[in-house]
Amino acid sequence: MSRRIRLTLEYDGTDFAGWQLQPGQRTVQGVVEAAAGKLLSLDDRVMVQASGRTDSGVHALAQVVAVDDPRAMPLEAWDEGLHRFLPSDVAVVGATLAEADFDPRRNATGKRYVYRIWNGPSRRPLRRRSSWWLPRPLEVPAMQAAAPLLLGHHDFSSFRAARCNAKSSHRTLTRLEVEGESGCEVRITAEGDGFLRHMVRIIVGTLVEVGELRRAPESVGAVLEARDRRSAGRTAASEGLTLEEVYYD
Amino acid sequence: MSRRIRLTLEYDGTDFAGWQLQPGQRTVQGVVEAAAGKLLSLDDRVMVQASGRTDSGVHALAQVVAVDDPRAMPLEAWDEGLHRFLPSDVAVVGATLAEADFDPRRNATGKRYVYRIWNGPSRRPLRRRSSWWLPRPLEVPAMQAAAPLLLGHHDFSSFRAARCNAKSSHRTLTRLEVEGESGCEVRITAEGDGFLRHMVRIIVGTLVEVGELRRAPESVGAVLEARDRRSAGRTAASEGLTLEEVYYD
Repeated sequence: MSRRIRLTLEYDGTDFAGWQLQPGQRTVQGVVEAAAGKLLSLDDRVMVQASGRTDSGVHALAQVVAVDDPRAMPLEAWDEGLHRFLPSDVAVVGATLAEADFDPRRNATGKRYVYRIWNGPSRRPLRRRSSWWLPRPLEVPAMQAAAPLLLGHHDFSSFRAARCNAKSSHRTLTRLEVEGESGCEVRITAEGDGFLRHMVRIIVGTLVEVGELRRAPESVGAVLEARDRRSAGRTAASEGLTLEEVYYD
Repeated sequence: MSRRIRLTLEYDGTDFAGWQLQPGQRTVQGVVEAAAGKLLSLDDRVMVQASGRTDSGVHALAQVVAVDDPRAMPLEAWDEGLHRFLPSDVAVVGATLAEADFDPRRNATGKRYVYRIWNGPSRRPLRRRSSWWLPRPLEVPAMQAAAPLLLGHHDFSSFRAARCNAKSSHRTLTRLEVEGESGCEVRITAEGDGFLRHMVRIIVGTLVEVGELRRAPESVGAVLEARDRRSAGRTAASEGLTLEEVYYD
């Protein structure tokens, strides 16, 4: 009998064209499906479903995915055994047996992302894969004053990419925290029941414009109300973003 | 009149065959000398001297180097301007005017290195470039008991690579600290007046064998006394090592 396996994956998104399978591109889904196919010795495509897509360059500390195992292999085969077929920038950090109807996207009740900005004057090679470099000092307290205005249940149309095709643009943001110091690392944590395409990166880009004193902190409420992408800030670079956790009941 | 410039460099050593120039290899020295040559528009080789070589795969947060500038360009040319010619894995994080006889290697009074071990059960892609992965839990208190035995002025013959050609094998280790937790990150900080070839990595490899309970903490003193490379532990992987600071009077 086929068993459904839930895997937790960590990946360095730098050298991937995002999660989603695309012909001719190196994607995390492509690499994981190929590895699962080899593990199961199946010629047909092995489908791996994720809690959501991550964009090109975006990292994951704990992406949750599901895969069906018609061979009912021991869990260690999925945990340790799959590594033989995975490249060094993707790893399984957990494997458990899931309910037959487990859907990592639909069943997710929330997600936490962290966004890192390196705000020092010099480009930093050891941070280049994990942080957005903004050399101009950011006014962190202004960003901290603006962030709470986005908390709660809202229509986040202003903070969604043009190509976003989610049916509803309503989401609930339960945490938006700006930590760190101007001139050093600034870290933004965003948690909510779900995120629209580019939502975290547009929120970060907008908060950065507040930190650059190009927008008043209180103007962020008006951006929400505008329900128009053009009223928000630029989209922050993908390399700063990491999916840290996906929540399930 | 030619001016001597002191540069502080950060680099991600992953994709370099170490600091030192080698024909047909991508080295940090090669890349920095080529960039300096372009900045100065000189056809002859521009020589860049470092505080010491770093091995293939070893990182630097603050390598100190010196270069002569016959064109007496403004310091900003060295700081910001050189970046135009440097790849993303090397950067100048500081540039100052140096005395004409400044020698980054001979004038250095000490160095600080940090070595990172990822001691969790799973391979971690986001740490793979900066940490040595050791899945078996390390007994950190045993490592902490062993470390102080290496402090002070000693003949470190047991902790030098076979190919090390330093004249004296005597060095003074002023700090050797093991921090962190078994199952998570373990960090080893080593500071001293100078280091022999592979010295930090052999010290780490020996402390790891103490943490694996394959050596008693107190046996480390006997390793020193043996003055024989074979009495020490294995050489820790290069990816965990970062040159953090070079000290000058």
